[in-house]
Amino acid sequence: SHEELKSLFVGYGYTPYFVEGDDPADMHQKMAATLDETIGMIRGVQRTARASKKAERPRWPMIVLRSPKGWTGPKEIKGHKAEGSWRSHQVPFSDVRDNPASLKLLENWLKGYKPEELFDKNGRLIDELRELAPTGARRISANPHANGGLLRKDLKLPDFRDYAVKVPDAGAVRHENTKPLGAFLRDVMRNNMTNFRVFGPDETASNRLQALYEVSKKTWMADFLPEDDDGGELARDGRVMEMLSEHTLLGWLEGYLLSGRHGFFHTYEAFAHVVDSMFNQHAKWLDICKNHVPWRASVASQNILLSSTVWRQDHNGFSHQDPGFIDLVTNKSPSVTRIYLPPDANTLLAVADRCLRSTDCINVIVADKQKHMQFTTIEEAIVHCEKGVGIWSRASNDAGVEPDVVMASCGDVATLDALGATAILRERLPELKVRFVNVVDLYKMQPASEHPHGLTPREFDGLFTTNKPVIFNFHGYPWLIHKLAYRFANHENVHVRGYKEKGNINTPLELA
Amino acid sequence: SHEELKSLFVGYGYTPYFVEGDDPADMHQKMAATLDETIGMIRGVQRTARASKKAERPRWPMIVLRSPKGWTGPKEIKGHKAEGSWRSHQVPFSDVRDNPASLKLLENWLKGYKPEELFDKNGRLIDELRELAPTGARRISANPHANGGLLRKDLKLPDFRDYAVKVPDAGAVRHENTKPLGAFLRDVMRNNMTNFRVFGPDETASNRLQALYEVSKKTWMADFLPEDDDGGELARDGRVMEMLSEHTLLGWLEGYLLSGRHGFFHTYEAFAHVVDSMFNQHAKWLDICKNHVPWRASVASQNILLSSTVWRQDHNGFSHQDPGFIDLVTNKSPSVTRIYLPPDANTLLAVADRCLRSTDCINVIVADKQKHMQFTTIEEAIVHCEKGVGIWSRASNDAGVEPDVVMASCGDVATLDALGATAILRERLPELKVRFVNVVDLYKMQPASEHPHGLTPREFDGLFTTNKPVIFNFHGYPWLIHKLAYRFANHENVHVRGYKEKGNINTPLELA
Repeated sequence: SHEELKSLFVGYGYTPYFVEGDDPADMHQKMAATLDETIGMIRGVQRTARASKKAERPRWPMIVLRSPKGWTGPKEIKGHKAEGSWRSHQVPFSDVRDNPASLKLLENWLKGYKPEELFDKNGRLIDELRELAPTGARRISANPHANGGLLRKDLKLPDFRDYAVKVPDAGAVRHENTKPLGAFLRDVMRNNMTNFRVFGPDETASNRLQALYEVSKKTWMADFLPEDDDGGELARDGRVMEMLSEHTLLGWLEGYLLSGRHGFFHTYEAFAHVVDSMFNQHAKWLDICKNHVPWRASVASQNILLSSTVWRQDHNGFSHQDPGFIDLVTNKSPSVTRIYLPPDANTLLAVADRCLRSTDCINVIVADKQKHMQFTTIEEAIVHCEKGVGIWSRASNDAGVEPDVVMASCGDVATLDALGATAILRERLPELKVRFVNVVDLYKMQPASEHPHGLTPREFDGLFTTNKPVIFNFHGYPWLIHKLAYRFANHENVHVRGYKEKGNINTPLELA
Repeated sequence: SHEELKSLFVGYGYTPYFVEGDDPADMHQKMAATLDETIGMIRGVQRTARASKKAERPRWPMIVLRSPKGWTGPKEIKGHKAEGSWRSHQVPFSDVRDNPASLKLLENWLKGYKPEELFDKNGRLIDELRELAPTGARRISANPHANGGLLRKDLKLPDFRDYAVKVPDAGAVRHENTKPLGAFLRDVMRNNMTNFRVFGPDETASNRLQALYEVSKKTWMADFLPEDDDGGELARDGRVMEMLSEHTLLGWLEGYLLSGRHGFFHTYEAFAHVVDSMFNQHAKWLDICKNHVPWRASVASQNILLSSTVWRQDHNGFSHQDPGFIDLVTNKSPSVTRIYLPPDANTLLAVADRCLRSTDCINVIVADKQKHMQFTTIEEAIVHCEKGVGIWSRASNDAGVEPDVVMASCGDVATLDALGATAILRERLPELKVRFVNVVDLYKMQPASEHPHGLTPREFDGLFTTNKPVIFNFHGYPWLIHKLAYRFANHENVHVRGYKEKGNINTPLELA
């Protein structure tokens, strides 16, 4: 009912206005009056907030336009009600070529708009009407708010090297991989307080990004309680957007990017599937804009961090184990999709810096928040991430010769396990020549013909050989590697270990 | 605010009741009184409807319980507010082994529940309290409504052969593949008017299943208009559930299945991704119940028809093109996932019959609604679907010999195209020995070691050879076939054609 609809929007926190009716002239006046009133209301809210320096939550106005479906179309078609009915959906009648009655109906309908008053005898819109249209940037298609890339300014980025973890020796220290990223993002925020926001479910601290709160709090529009001052990290003007709705968060981020700003979205890996469909549509839109719509200016990339990953869900269990979002990503256009699985804190910093500088892509980073062994110094991390895939010589003993076996890894936990397995191999079989390869940029596993980041067959063969066994320890579902790499010569010797759908709702015992 | 929350639920169509406070004894009485009142209200609605034989939409009662977070936990921990604060989330303090003050706090907290009044000196709950617990089927875990398989009755299915399309000669007739399914579902509905429902966005007619309305209408709870009698197909007691929210629909279906009934969900292929996460969680739940929880009775399978598929989105364009839902399905447990791509109307009938009889699975059927060439008689369809994959001898000329090339297809449009290509091949190169293989059951492309429907290496080699080129025309993303089939001997000779992310928002020209 009308009352329920009104209640619903009041419940969402708005002041709903209704413009309802079916007489066009009357509706036009109603809409104009309502727009005047609501814009006045918005201006009033702004004035009060600016004068008092105190921002309270306004009940923003919203307009519900309720007009007949198929408005001003034929009232009736072949004895059925058309205007104001579901029958006016899409093509209300289509037999005008063969049915003179239908042709007449179409003619009467279109003549009802009085074209002789709208166009001159050359078929040109009359000047009086042409002059109503706005000019310049006020035209919808030319308005920079609708082509936000025109408004985009590069982020002022601090030097990510300054946030590096000191790694005196590979494997010597343990660190939460996402924590230095949190400090880096804090200073990205500090340098860009009008065009950068971080979005996530209520997990900014859980994902170890809480350094952000030193610079900006969680956006909070509801009531404050006295105890909120004690660590609540809430503020009306907070730039950390938290809400337990991945849909709302990603929608906010999309709007923010498309209007020329920058952002960073982080979520639990398993629950990224909640926004699969939104990801799909944004990827399609980006692909078209980038490759087919030259007048669209580049927008900042959509940066997605998947943390709290599948391998560290001992306490949450089976329901929280799902590394399949990246499977979905690999279905979308290679020109807009990027996937990174940095093995430690410093590689994560190097990857994040690269993502924050990029445009017109969706960058997915998979990195766990828990404490992990650190493998690379920041200088090594930069070189490794630049290449995207590389041999780790300290874990290898095949210098100068063809290896007997390639041990490969992609992902933080997967890399630790693969290094452990390699150490055992080298201890038990010292005569075996082992090469250790780590993959940061997942698309390196695809041929260059399929993805701009892909390897040429020659590059792939140089790393993975053409005929030696490759034991590949992967973060995600194992078949994803086969899906990407099946065209390479040595594919049949690649044995992938990864996550398979095992586990239990409550225990981690069946995970591996 | 409280008022906004109330408005929101009124807006959703409920009568909200609030039970709010922090004194346990007081809250107990409030909740008991509110339950009495609301159950009385429900009974009243039922009485009125039964007496008047007229069902109007009731504003069902709902209860909002607002109690402090960490209720009856410590008021304060180490100087911070705990009860009624976010700080009581999960483990509010953990240093009881090392910190005597924390141990004391824990002791005082637990003693606050007066265990000496609840347990006797042997640590046994006192009889007075034990007797409060319900017995038999009133216990939550033993209630058949929570273990709905106990209530499940097999569907009374009509003979699906009666709905077959007559196919005098393969390719001689064209028919909308989903239309006979609609007639079959109509009679399934007719025979099972208390335990079968069909769920879909507003596309039952668009997906050619409108025969259903002959037996039961769309559930409609809002106002009726005079013109609704003219083809509106609306009724208070309709059993066709339509709503443009895949989330709500799949949630309804899950609840319906888990309480012992049967259902059928159909949606646009591209938009099934909206419910990816719900699918994932249901698949995990089913897998655990089926393999680890012996007392759970089998529930009816979740049947999902993906129609309006990627290859027939000429008018809707790029946004409606996404065959990736089945990629997601193949990540989940083989013991509960099934995928069928029947090439024509009769194979679709045979597959649907099988799905409606099955339990404890998620059956995904991909079949387009548009007019397609018909290939199989109903007898051929039954045999073909029983095997799941087979040689189509009429399209082949390799009888008795090893073929030079295998032409394979999976999916309706893909099969038509592959047959067309085969006809050209045989015309231009009559000496070439061509074998035509059609796949209905997608999991036949996986080894039997990986999926219960999979082929043994011997079976696969028998169909696809061990060394001849296989040109595989696939409905979905081409790499899905590689992901499934990479372990088979002839995998490196399999060349898959399928959908790649090409297209435009508005035109079909770039689809292929």
